[in-house]
Amino acid sequence: MVAKSTNTAGLRGQVAGDTALCTVGQSGSGLTYCGYDIADLAEHASFEEVAFLLQYGELPTSQELSSYHEQLQAKRELPTAVCEILERIPKDAHPMDVMRTGCSALGTIEQEMSFDEQDDHIVNMLAKFPGIMAYWYHFHFNGQRIATTSDGQSIAEHWLALLTQKSPESLHIDTMHASLILYAEHEFNASTFAARVAASTLTDIYSAVTAAIGTLRGPLHGGANEAAMALISSFESPDDAEQKLMGMLERKDKIMGFGHAVYRTSDPRNVVIKQWSKKISEAVGDTRLYDISERCEKVMWREKELFPNADFYHASTYHHMGIPTDLFTPIFVMSRVSGWTAHIKEQRANNRIIRPSAGYVGAEPRAFVALDDR
Amino acid sequence: MVAKSTNTAGLRGQVAGDTALCTVGQSGSGLTYCGYDIADLAEHASFEEVAFLLQYGELPTSQELSSYHEQLQAKRELPTAVCEILERIPKDAHPMDVMRTGCSALGTIEQEMSFDEQDDHIVNMLAKFPGIMAYWYHFHFNGQRIATTSDGQSIAEHWLALLTQKSPESLHIDTMHASLILYAEHEFNASTFAARVAASTLTDIYSAVTAAIGTLRGPLHGGANEAAMALISSFESPDDAEQKLMGMLERKDKIMGFGHAVYRTSDPRNVVIKQWSKKISEAVGDTRLYDISERCEKVMWREKELFPNADFYHASTYHHMGIPTDLFTPIFVMSRVSGWTAHIKEQRANNRIIRPSAGYVGAEPRAFVALDDR
Ligand SMILES: CC(C)(COP(=O)(O)OP(=O)(O)OC[C@H]1O[C@@H](n2cnc3c(N)ncnc32)[C@H](O)[C@@H]1OP(=O)(O)O)[C@@H](O)C(=O)NCCC(=O)NCCS
Ligand SMILES: CC(C)(COP(=O)(O)OP(=O)(O)OC[C@H]1O[C@@H](n2cnc3c(N)ncnc32)[C@H](O)[C@@H]1OP(=O)(O)O)[C@@H](O)C(=O)NCCC(=O)NCCS
Repeated sequence: MVAKSTNTAGLRGQVAGDTALCTVGQSGSGLTYCGYDIADLAEHASFEEVAFLLQYGELPTSQELSSYHEQLQAKRELPTAVCEILERIPKDAHPMDVMRTGCSALGTIEQEMSFDEQDDHIVNMLAKFPGIMAYWYHFHFNGQRIATTSDGQSIAEHWLALLTQKSPESLHIDTMHASLILYAEHEFNASTFAARVAASTLTDIYSAVTAAIGTLRGPLHGGANEAAMALISSFESPDDAEQKLMGMLERKDKIMGFGHAVYRTSDPRNVVIKQWSKKISEAVGDTRLYDISERCEKVMWREKELFPNADFYHASTYHHMGIPTDLFTPIFVMSRVSGWTAHIKEQRANNRIIRPSAGYVGAEPRAFVALDDR
Repeated sequence: MVAKSTNTAGLRGQVAGDTALCTVGQSGSGLTYCGYDIADLAEHASFEEVAFLLQYGELPTSQELSSYHEQLQAKRELPTAVCEILERIPKDAHPMDVMRTGCSALGTIEQEMSFDEQDDHIVNMLAKFPGIMAYWYHFHFNGQRIATTSDGQSIAEHWLALLTQKSPESLHIDTMHASLILYAEHEFNASTFAARVAASTLTDIYSAVTAAIGTLRGPLHGGANEAAMALISSFESPDDAEQKLMGMLERKDKIMGFGHAVYRTSDPRNVVIKQWSKKISEAVGDTRLYDISERCEKVMWREKELFPNADFYHASTYHHMGIPTDLFTPIFVMSRVSGWTAHIKEQRANNRIIRPSAGYVGAEPRAFVALDDR
């Protein structure tokens, strides 16, 4: 018998629990973190303010923010054993596999011994994820064992400093803040939900975040920003994009960076990242990818009423910041770890193990047949 | 506002998708794998027959089974890089963190490049998980770099050979087969569901299994066999157990190894493992833990109508096989990887991203306040 999709497939539209962290597709632009509209946060806040908001439920005061920055800066340096493990992950591994393994390894070395320590470990992951990615990258691609500390004030600046091994320009830092804010949290998306399922067994926080990283990796989820880059860079011009897209739609290909499980007419993160993509493209004096992206947007809406999600203009934005395509989804991890861990805290505070049922579509009860009689 | 549990908490009783692999709490003993009753499988089959059944939907013929054994044996040896990574996971790490990191690392070195390869990678994990655990264990606890191959015919025998570094006795091999069969599959339990959520983004198989390992680790799930061991070994005698249990129940402590999210009156795996516990206890000539376990069972039913689940008698069984308590849940991994991967295949064959909704219980929309005004 073949399993068939029911209209509850993918739990779409079904309430799987409560959250105080986020609304998706409701009042205002549709996306709020702890009551604050995403457009306001992306324009006015730093990523650290947003991470603090998700972690503690309120925006930090100046004093709280300074102390949060200090804690984050103090925890940047990777333990030697983590570096040695990263050196043994091959050069041709996917960077998301590096993040997953790096996070898992970190959790064996700096273990969460009790839930009382959870806030320290959240800061630890926020502080160290940029170093995990950059250390592996430079070791394999530049034959260099980099220091995993930097003078960068913020996570955005620290990450860019480690990646480029120089002082990042302010336009890049600002863009990175906005990007990290847009990616920070998104209610019960697949990776967050995986983190909550893991957390519901009362496992440790590194296990739950490792589960989320492996889930985000998929092309239907975080992997879409990388896939969108492959798409737009396969087009020569806007006209070429239009022609090829029409062919893809005819063949019923999925177009990466479009569509959403909850939003129906637009993704509020898109307006924001699109502006940054434009700004960065103009700054580098090359708007070809931006123009191609705009044409894709037009065609997809006209043909399918599908709209770009958060990932689509991230592709051209990151590309013009000089970030290698394979590292796009790991940046999503550096940001979303704030949302994941906020959900893990919330799950722990009011827990019941997440254990649904299944519809059975398999063989009827049957008698065992001994090996020799088969 | 405080999140409150709704009666949909933990998705209990809600159908989150279809499966052809397993029934829990239905006809016969209540537990079937692909239509075969668990009691029959545990009595008549080898673990490899059951793993094959889950992987391909039918019990193997003699020829298929020999070829399956050959494939499994051929893939046992760990890559050097995995061994070097295991050496860097500290001695005081939890063995489940070792399994999680070992699986994640393996996936960076022997990557699943396409879903067409999935069956090879399933065999790869079944073959290598015993070696991952045993290599780390002997390196740190005996200062030995063991070979990760052995003459063991089956996974059960191979695992025991690696662990004890000698030829296992046949009672132990038989017990291990039964145990691996009991643990192999259990419908939409939390770790399997986490694997399906991950797989639904179309991520690779190692990501999905890594997510499942981190989920199984929790004390409300696979971690319960280890917790049950801590419990029974804290009692001096059956009378002492009764007295202390009564106190624990009064204090509303959770008693590990009892209760179930789906079964209401008994767990069909319990009858089977209880028999093996008895056999092994008698063989070692020490039935104290068994007698204590039976008293716990009696008290829990009398006081709370709670019954032992699959984990409870596993504690005394494994203990009397000489297995260190910390390694109990990793054995669960060596078995359940068969069920997880069968579910990953099933999810991929008929996929929609698993992305539920959340009830919102957070702050009303609020205006952003600049840092200096907070
Ligand atoms: C995001 C996504 C996984 C949501 O999945 P979903 O909730 O199951 O999708 P829906 O049920 O809303 O899809 C409705 C229809 O639109 C189609 N569709 C959705 N997104 C599409 C896309 N990007 N390209 C082409 N067709 C698409 C679906 O195939 C479906 O068609 P059907 O009814 O003929 O089967 C899906 O839109 C997608 O795969 N997008 C591309 C990957 C991506 O960008 N992911 C990042 C999300 S932030
Ligand atoms: C398995 C388990 C997680 C199922 O959780 P669940 O579906 O949320 O549990 P239920 O809703 O059926 O529990 C009903 C009641 O029995 C109580 N209960 C369940 N298992 C209990 C246990 N092992 N000890 C004490 N009380 C228990 C619950 O606290 C609940 O009481 P309440 O209604 O006063 O809150 C739960 O039984 C448990 O935590 N058991 C111990 C851990 C364990 O052995 N896990 C391995 C499972 S194979």
